[in-house]
Amino acid sequence: MESVINYINSNLHNYINELIEYLKIPSISTLESHKEDVNKCAEFIANKLKDAGMTRVEIFQTEKHPIVYGEWLGAQNKPTVLIYGHYDVQPVDPLELWKSPPFEPVIEDGKIWARGANDNKGQHFVHVKSVESFFKTHGSLPLNVKFIIEGEEEIGSDSLYSFIKNNKELLKCDAVLISDTSMYDKNVPTISYGLRGLLYTEIEVTGPKADLHSGTFGGAVANPINELAKIISKLHDKNGKVTIPNFYKDVLKLSKEEKENFNRLKFSDKKFAKELGVKELQGEKGFSTLERLWVRPTLDCNGIVGGFTEKGAKTVLPSKAIAKVSMRLVPNQNPHKIFKEFSNYVKSLAPKSVKVDVRMLHYGYPVITPLNSKAIEAASKAVSKAFGKKTVFTREGGSIPIVVEFMKHLKAPAVLMGLGLDTDNIHSPNEHFHIENFEKGILSSVYFIDEFSKV
Amino acid sequence: MESVINYINSNLHNYINELIEYLKIPSISTLESHKEDVNKCAEFIANKLKDAGMTRVEIFQTEKHPIVYGEWLGAQNKPTVLIYGHYDVQPVDPLELWKSPPFEPVIEDGKIWARGANDNKGQHFVHVKSVESFFKTHGSLPLNVKFIIEGEEEIGSDSLYSFIKNNKELLKCDAVLISDTSMYDKNVPTISYGLRGLLYTEIEVTGPKADLHSGTFGGAVANPINELAKIISKLHDKNGKVTIPNFYKDVLKLSKEEKENFNRLKFSDKKFAKELGVKELQGEKGFSTLERLWVRPTLDCNGIVGGFTEKGAKTVLPSKAIAKVSMRLVPNQNPHKIFKEFSNYVKSLAPKSVKVDVRMLHYGYPVITPLNSKAIEAASKAVSKAFGKKTVFTREGGSIPIVVEFMKHLKAPAVLMGLGLDTDNIHSPNEHFHIENFEKGILSSVYFIDEFSKV
Repeated sequence: MESVINYINSNLHNYINELIEYLKIPSISTLESHKEDVNKCAEFIANKLKDAGMTRVEIFQTEKHPIVYGEWLGAQNKPTVLIYGHYDVQPVDPLELWKSPPFEPVIEDGKIWARGANDNKGQHFVHVKSVESFFKTHGSLPLNVKFIIEGEEEIGSDSLYSFIKNNKELLKCDAVLISDTSMYDKNVPTISYGLRGLLYTEIEVTGPKADLHSGTFGGAVANPINELAKIISKLHDKNGKVTIPNFYKDVLKLSKEEKENFNRLKFSDKKFAKELGVKELQGEKGFSTLERLWVRPTLDCNGIVGGFTEKGAKTVLPSKAIAKVSMRLVPNQNPHKIFKEFSNYVKSLAPKSVKVDVRMLHYGYPVITPLNSKAIEAASKAVSKAFGKKTVFTREGGSIPIVVEFMKHLKAPAVLMGLGLDTDNIHSPNEHFHIENFEKGILSSVYFIDEFSKV
Repeated sequence: MESVINYINSNLHNYINELIEYLKIPSISTLESHKEDVNKCAEFIANKLKDAGMTRVEIFQTEKHPIVYGEWLGAQNKPTVLIYGHYDVQPVDPLELWKSPPFEPVIEDGKIWARGANDNKGQHFVHVKSVESFFKTHGSLPLNVKFIIEGEEEIGSDSLYSFIKNNKELLKCDAVLISDTSMYDKNVPTISYGLRGLLYTEIEVTGPKADLHSGTFGGAVANPINELAKIISKLHDKNGKVTIPNFYKDVLKLSKEEKENFNRLKFSDKKFAKELGVKELQGEKGFSTLERLWVRPTLDCNGIVGGFTEKGAKTVLPSKAIAKVSMRLVPNQNPHKIFKEFSNYVKSLAPKSVKVDVRMLHYGYPVITPLNSKAIEAASKAVSKAFGKKTVFTREGGSIPIVVEFMKHLKAPAVLMGLGLDTDNIHSPNEHFHIENFEKGILSSVYFIDEFSKV
């Protein structure tokens, strides 16, 4: 290992320069005008995979943007790790808020500033360079490696969804390694092992068949906004618990180990409330904030609209009101089962004077990789060595649908080795990535390959 | 009276032709491009007032559209009636839905079809012609008459508001007579004597200082939409009563006479529900539908908006949610007192985790003219004679702010002698006015002048 690490140290400058070249390509997947840049970017990373020692590198064309695949399968009887990343980036507007042009990377203040620096070019390039360092020093790897780097993450990964489903054998692996999340804090090596799922619905309440004058008709007919509000108000009890029947039935209880891990994170409610600009936090009674965010299911209105919504006053008694209501689900809740319960419950809450439709707009399953899985253990040791600190274990409040797809179709555990920081401005002007995290990321990847090769 | 009535009968055809000329002028007050038409229309009706025998006719210029005033004060020691109307009309779009052009009046099926036929040219022209008929047969009137015909009713009557306030002496009268409402049903002579008032407010609930990702943050912070829904849900109890403290304290109880009047109207809940397209009606327990519409105060949401409201899904936990909440007030509720109670109550319903602002957008006082007032009695007799049936007494669920202004500043009772029908398509394509109601309206006006001159 020492030789690999020495090699990295003496080549870090070059690696950074290569990343800068990668970041110069404006691979904005959502803009048709950048289609050529996206293709150019796919070729760029494919070449980097070749340079890194992959013996098979292929660019798969799709209906939208190419998927880049690379493999080196020379380690017989050794585990295989599939490393995922995406070479496409978010748009850059508002351009005027950038301190330096988004596709002219600048190094300043220990950070590299450019669109994609963190999300996700910087984060997955780490793994390309760790593999390369291994090859350049040993001529081989201690385990088998597959790379899958897509160009549609920022627009929904449609092509990759079907690619995974249709290429289970090609992508077969013992673990999926992904660096596309955040560290718990600066200099805190972090492994995430769980994601909440999602059930996104829409409730539509219809009263009179047309909008009415609230003076002429008000008082004699149910008002859809008032009725919708009543429904929403009944979705939580006074302790902040969701009242949908059987909602908590399949919820996996937090293990003692996880609870201790979370407590060790010394999360400050006061600081968090201040950051969000609220006087106090609010959530399900009997659970800490991190538990509420990571391991407890929730229900939130994401949008509501009905009647007159412009400035000023209009005395309308509207015909309809609509709310978008989503639930974050946790293992082992099933979005379809929950939707059925939700839909029946919501309908039961409305009086006969209105009509209620409940629609499922989309869903995603929650996932969890057991803390004692070999991949998590290897990753934990790896980041701990690289950063020189004890690893913390987090779960994510949000959903990363592609992770769920990998786990479902490949039946492999997923390891989220986040190397970014929440303050890195991803999806915003002045995105950046800490050079230190880039460097320690490469080390983390090298240690992971070493550790996971021994399992 | 017989001579006047004979005169009307032999001149009805001319009167209709004059109304047609009046209706040809596209006096759309809201469109700058029709400014000249509006002025032309003011001159037209001023000339008609002169023709009708008014000895003083004046066109008062205002910041927007002219106010036309006419008077004949030759009946010493006799009461004075102030007749109100408006010569401006609503826009005509969507034009393609009109069966005949809106400003090319057509007589068909016993109706006159044109924009303004009912609202309000047809309805107030009735009074101009009744006065004229008196003059042409007797050379005088049995009481004093003042006309005030404005050109801004469809855009808020701003100029008339200040005109009334600044011309109390000019407009001084013993009753205000207005034909700008509907009859209870076809061939049912109707006098309205009460209007609900209005308190229009806006509730703004603010949670986190910026929109958040509902996955990353959902469960740990109050959601403004959910909190707003909870507030709204607490504004009514399970019996449909508004829960604002002291809300019903000043509500005038329905008299036995009024209750009997309403019961006699044989209102059909079933038919009403069918017309509105609802399975069943809903309102305050213990009151009939007409009571709920006319004499009980109500609370309705007129609009609500927050978070993501487009098609599809966006996992946002919004920073803000806003609802427009209005209350219809009845005599003797005071909008300012109610607003204070409402504002305090709403704020008391929210948890500390959100900030709640409550704003008053506008208000209007409820009004009622006692059933036993001389003006109401005279009007009742008049329409009954004209239509040959017993008069019904209604109140209005909506507000007509200008009526309140007249009553407040002139201290005179208002009589709403509606001659239109709810089915006349005012503010819509194919507006029309029944020729029969035009004719019987002129008779009603003649009888009113006769009856009210005797009080």
